[in-house]
Amino acid sequence: MKTTMKALVYKEKGVVALEERPMPSVQLPTDALVRVTLASICSSDLHIKHGSVPRAKEGTVLGHEFVGEIVEVGSEVKKFKAGDRVSVNVETFCGECYFCKRGYVNNCEHGGWELGCRIDGGQAEYVRVPMADQAFTKIPDDVTDEAALFNGDILATGYWAAQVADLKPADKVVVIGAGPTGLCTLMSIKLYSPGQVIVVDVDDERLALAKEQGLCDVTINSRTQNVEEEILKLTNGRGADRVFEVAGAKGTFETAWKVARPNALVIIVALYEEPQVLPLNLMYGKNLTFITGGVDANSCEEIMEMVRSGKIDTSCLITHKAPLNDIMMGYRMFENREDGVIKWVVTPYEEGREERK
Amino acid sequence: MKTTMKALVYKEKGVVALEERPMPSVQLPTDALVRVTLASICSSDLHIKHGSVPRAKEGTVLGHEFVGEIVEVGSEVKKFKAGDRVSVNVETFCGECYFCKRGYVNNCEHGGWELGCRIDGGQAEYVRVPMADQAFTKIPDDVTDEAALFNGDILATGYWAAQVADLKPADKVVVIGAGPTGLCTLMSIKLYSPGQVIVVDVDDERLALAKEQGLCDVTINSRTQNVEEEILKLTNGRGADRVFEVAGAKGTFETAWKVARPNALVIIVALYEEPQVLPLNLMYGKNLTFITGGVDANSCEEIMEMVRSGKIDTSCLITHKAPLNDIMMGYRMFENREDGVIKWVVTPYEEGREERK
Amino acid sequence: MKTTMKALVYKEKGVVALEERPMPSVQLPTDALVRVTLASICSSDLHIKHGSVPRAKEGTVLGHEFVGEIVEVGSEVKKFKAGDRVSVNVETFCGECYFCKRGYVNNCEHGGWELGCRIDGGQAEYVRVPMADQAFTKIPDDVTDEAALFNGDILATGYWAAQVADLKPADKVVVIGAGPTGLCTLMSIKLYSPGQVIVVDVDDERLALAKEQGLCDVTINSRTQNVEEEILKLTNGRGADRVFEVAGAKGTFETAWKVARPNALVIIVALYEEPQVLPLNLMYGKNLTFITGGVDANSCEEIMEMVRSGKIDTSCLITHKAPLNDIMMGYRMFENREDGVIKWVVTPYEEGREERK
Amino acid sequence: MKTTMKALVYKEKGVVALEERPMPSVQLPTDALVRVTLASICSSDLHIKHGSVPRAKEGTVLGHEFVGEIVEVGSEVKKFKAGDRVSVNVETFCGECYFCKRGYVNNCEHGGWELGCRIDGGQAEYVRVPMADQAFTKIPDDVTDEAALFNGDILATGYWAAQVADLKPADKVVVIGAGPTGLCTLMSIKLYSPGQVIVVDVDDERLALAKEQGLCDVTINSRTQNVEEEILKLTNGRGADRVFEVAGAKGTFETAWKVARPNALVIIVALYEEPQVLPLNLMYGKNLTFITGGVDANSCEEIMEMVRSGKIDTSCLITHKAPLNDIMMGYRMFENREDGVIKWVVTPYEEGREERK
Repeated sequence: MKTTMKALVYKEKGVVALEERPMPSVQLPTDALVRVTLASICSSDLHIKHGSVPRAKEGTVLGHEFVGEIVEVGSEVKKFKAGDRVSVNVETFCGECYFCKRGYVNNCEHGGWELGCRIDGGQAEYVRVPMADQAFTKIPDDVTDEAALFNGDILATGYWAAQVADLKPADKVVVIGAGPTGLCTLMSIKLYSPGQVIVVDVDDERLALAKEQGLCDVTINSRTQNVEEEILKLTNGRGADRVFEVAGAKGTFETAWKVARPNALVIIVALYEEPQVLPLNLMYGKNLTFITGGVDANSCEEIMEMVRSGKIDTSCLITHKAPLNDIMMGYRMFENREDGVIKWVVTPYEEGREERK
Repeated sequence: MKTTMKALVYKEKGVVALEERPMPSVQLPTDALVRVTLASICSSDLHIKHGSVPRAKEGTVLGHEFVGEIVEVGSEVKKFKAGDRVSVNVETFCGECYFCKRGYVNNCEHGGWELGCRIDGGQAEYVRVPMADQAFTKIPDDVTDEAALFNGDILATGYWAAQVADLKPADKVVVIGAGPTGLCTLMSIKLYSPGQVIVVDVDDERLALAKEQGLCDVTINSRTQNVEEEILKLTNGRGADRVFEVAGAKGTFETAWKVARPNALVIIVALYEEPQVLPLNLMYGKNLTFITGGVDANSCEEIMEMVRSGKIDTSCLITHKAPLNDIMMGYRMFENREDGVIKWVVTPYEEGREERK
Repeated sequence: MKTTMKALVYKEKGVVALEERPMPSVQLPTDALVRVTLASICSSDLHIKHGSVPRAKEGTVLGHEFVGEIVEVGSEVKKFKAGDRVSVNVETFCGECYFCKRGYVNNCEHGGWELGCRIDGGQAEYVRVPMADQAFTKIPDDVTDEAALFNGDILATGYWAAQVADLKPADKVVVIGAGPTGLCTLMSIKLYSPGQVIVVDVDDERLALAKEQGLCDVTINSRTQNVEEEILKLTNGRGADRVFEVAGAKGTFETAWKVARPNALVIIVALYEEPQVLPLNLMYGKNLTFITGGVDANSCEEIMEMVRSGKIDTSCLITHKAPLNDIMMGYRMFENREDGVIKWVVTPYEEGREERK
Repeated sequence: MKTTMKALVYKEKGVVALEERPMPSVQLPTDALVRVTLASICSSDLHIKHGSVPRAKEGTVLGHEFVGEIVEVGSEVKKFKAGDRVSVNVETFCGECYFCKRGYVNNCEHGGWELGCRIDGGQAEYVRVPMADQAFTKIPDDVTDEAALFNGDILATGYWAAQVADLKPADKVVVIGAGPTGLCTLMSIKLYSPGQVIVVDVDDERLALAKEQGLCDVTINSRTQNVEEEILKLTNGRGADRVFEVAGAKGTFETAWKVARPNALVIIVALYEEPQVLPLNLMYGKNLTFITGGVDANSCEEIMEMVRSGKIDTSCLITHKAPLNDIMMGYRMFENREDGVIKWVVTPYEEGREERK
């Protein structure tokens, strides 16, 4: 019987490493033990690596976006059993507290973002998942692991963002950022078919992908075009009805509120590494509403049904796939955006195969 | 026939003066000429004086909160006639453009905050009011000028704030700032009778007034008490469900988002003189919604009915009343918060009486 | 040890009887056994007696509105324990199914209205309560049993009705029916302080009570006044913004839609014994919205807090109180509205005391 | 100069006739005179003919769905001028009264459904249109008369219905009736892309058309299939989340509430000729919300933009087109549903050509 396993560990600010760790196990009657079949590297993992996620703990196995097979469940787990194929929610929550009852599971009094942040996550061979009855979404037989992989994190995030945006058929919508979460936001926005979708990014390849996938009507490259001018032209000089800020980069927060029309909704989806400036004195009278993230991942069953029925298809996100052996190379390429990587997907560790960095 | 009149003019940053100005007159067929019977000094007038209202123009007669009697109307004015007693809306709007049709009159394509900001306002004997059919609320016979005075600006602001806050019977509500607009916000919040209302200010007299008027359940003096701690104690450690920031002072924006529970609404009612810092990196996952002002003053008829039926009573706001002759003294005392002034109300100019400074 | 107990049983259409029944006990690990300390007779009990509740089963102990002390809990009950004072929800629900997750607990796939309808209820000495973790609201130490008695049924109903009615400060509201549920609806409406509340009933005493309790502004006796005319007079000839039909009597449904202004909400709270006529041909263009009941009793904790803080006080409802021995007399007097009865409250059975009929 | 014109007149219950009528003219300064370029026959015209529209007046020229060219405007008309191509709103409204200000233009205190009902309508060569500033939607140069024809009535109706239905991406939606208004409702529903759209009708051709046009996922013929069973099968045994009743036929109202899941919205779009039965006793606890029509046609500019951008295409509705000379034949064929007619469109009268009956 296996007593150790491979796992990617957040060592300290700036340092992650692939290490040998003890096998996890069911400890509480509400736990489940999961064999990870696919995991991904997420930009939030980089935020942790950069030391800009205050709640993250050194020594934790990273990985909060993964699917797997349940190996064992504790005695009080009722909804899942060994053998179930599941996607895992980014948030760990009890389902019973003041916040959970209101759907604010991200602020569960006994959880929140735990996996791959404060407790060991899924960039590993196995993972112990607490509060298992709330932790998973079953993957239907006709959905592949790949199709289900983003259900619990970036797709839940994009879905949440579209959901809170009160989208209407005539709305002109701007999405800033066509990275993985931006694309998931676009996929979710499409479910509401607003009047016009404009996507802004610095990367022509990503913009082209958004267009090819039918996720937007217009693309703007903020490196080469004047974003404010272009959006004013497209919106009768008024600005956009809804703006989604999914970039979190220097200047994109400012762009977001500037391209919004008066009385617009601005949905802040990105995780920022720095504080932003809110010049309320300049925007007085613009009557903007800012909805700040992150995700309350409690629509995962509904999202899975969207994936199953083909209304959402995330296959274009997976540009790279390699075993856990190569995850250090994955982190490097994902961080540097090498080789057009959108999502680096991690398959199970292969014994006897070298580890590439 | 009178060819000049007295008026309080914004000369340049830091300087206002009571001057002799030409009598205004009806110029467009949609104009009305109003004899001012009562006006007030508003903190927004101070913001203009301090040079922190970008849209304000030097040389403009100040005053955007006033009531009066219509003296003359242009040929296309249909809803009002000479002799009507009216309160005047802070915003000038057409009622027909894209924004007006959606109720966003503050962003009217042909108006917005004009009176006492970009065109001559009501701290004067007479004032020309454009787009008169949208400019006024008739004062019912059983409502006094004093009772109607705040209808078009600070009461409209407080009413708007309460309206967008989606208040529920069980909500715990914090209002930061018990100045004139803060008190009007409290009066409007009371119309929804939320579970508990907590008011924060630095001034014990204002806090006592809020309490005496039955506008709040708890008061906190932020000079002598730890606001965050007190509010956590009052809210089961969770923070407030709704926070209204009506102070606009240094630090109050930060207090606002800190005392809000996760997923709360934070309504930014104040007009700030400085940009604020929004540390999205620290508040990630708190999922706050920020609704920023100012007022869309299109509920004025409804507010007048609340005043008429006694559901709103602003009489406690009027601590000082003096003729236009004394307005320079009024500005000084209002700015320095001398003598417990809450609202300084200006009555008509008295010929032959000295002007006090 | 006690092996039998007294209980009021629905025998067949038209017949109820106080009988000796076997003591209930915990049967499933999610059950609780409750000693009833107070129960009430509800108009729904009469509907069952009249044979007009299709889901009701003959041979069932009646009573779905009661409070008590938990005597024993099954092994899987987590939130409650022996000794807890609790009010019982009218609806039995799992908290996990499609409907429960959306708050539609009245349509729980494994429950709904069960107690006192399809399984033995609380007009008895003891009662077995299934799905106990969802079944109760704890009664705080500073709330009496009497104050908590209506929490789980008629007060939950009134609270639900007010909650779905989207009440605004300027609304003119009509409530038809000032019986127990009508009064609870009025108490709940008051939490939103709408502009004007008009109550309609045939009984002057009940109307007077509503007025004395500060629950309404105007009363109309439909026996002696023309309801439609009176309401038109009170509403500028337009009709009411919100209408609550809590009478369920002949003609009151028609009154409800007739006194509603175009585009009003009509909330149907009553349980009817007969089908109603909906003359869509006559009301075409009136654009009414009808919200039909009954209650989704999932706000019970919030309601208990309203009771605890004094925002809701139902003490005026309890006009009669007598031990279970007298419940047959209670049914008779409640059905015939004898002696001004509003709520007949049942206290525990007293051994050795005669049973009055 | 022309002094008479041809027009289709509602004579009395059961009788319409093509007659010679005096030329209409501008009478009030807010009127416009329109030369009709295209009109349609609507099922509401049949309702009038059948005597089941209480507000309709004998002797009125029928026709409330038409487009034309403005010939002359009164002196107070500001937004339109001679030469403008316009679609005409089914409702005549002032834009200023209590109801208009809230968007309830169908209940305008000075209007409502007037044209072709109480004042002469558009199945004529010319028509006088009152309150012209609110009466029209300009037809953009790149939109044909045919594409704009349904903007003001059946498309506005379908758009209203979809708008009030609070549609979500996962909703399962049933539309009963695939006639002209049913198809317009389907086109409007599509703008929200709900999860699954099921359409019910008795006519296989209409069902096939809905499917071909991509307006639904599933069709059910209520003549040959068990509608309730089929819908339960498609909705996990729960019923539909949203039901639109657009048939108004015997039994379809009952089908509507029966196939709705608990807590569903049922939108009653149809105009009924008979009262319906609402068996509240049987549906107690189902907690349905019924939203009753008709249309508040105040989204016409938005709808025109949908037509212009190609998001709505009504061309499939026009199965027959003939000059006003043939309108009696049109009424007969439309009423009897001959030759697969969906919409019979009327082009201008041709002098010297025979009138076919």
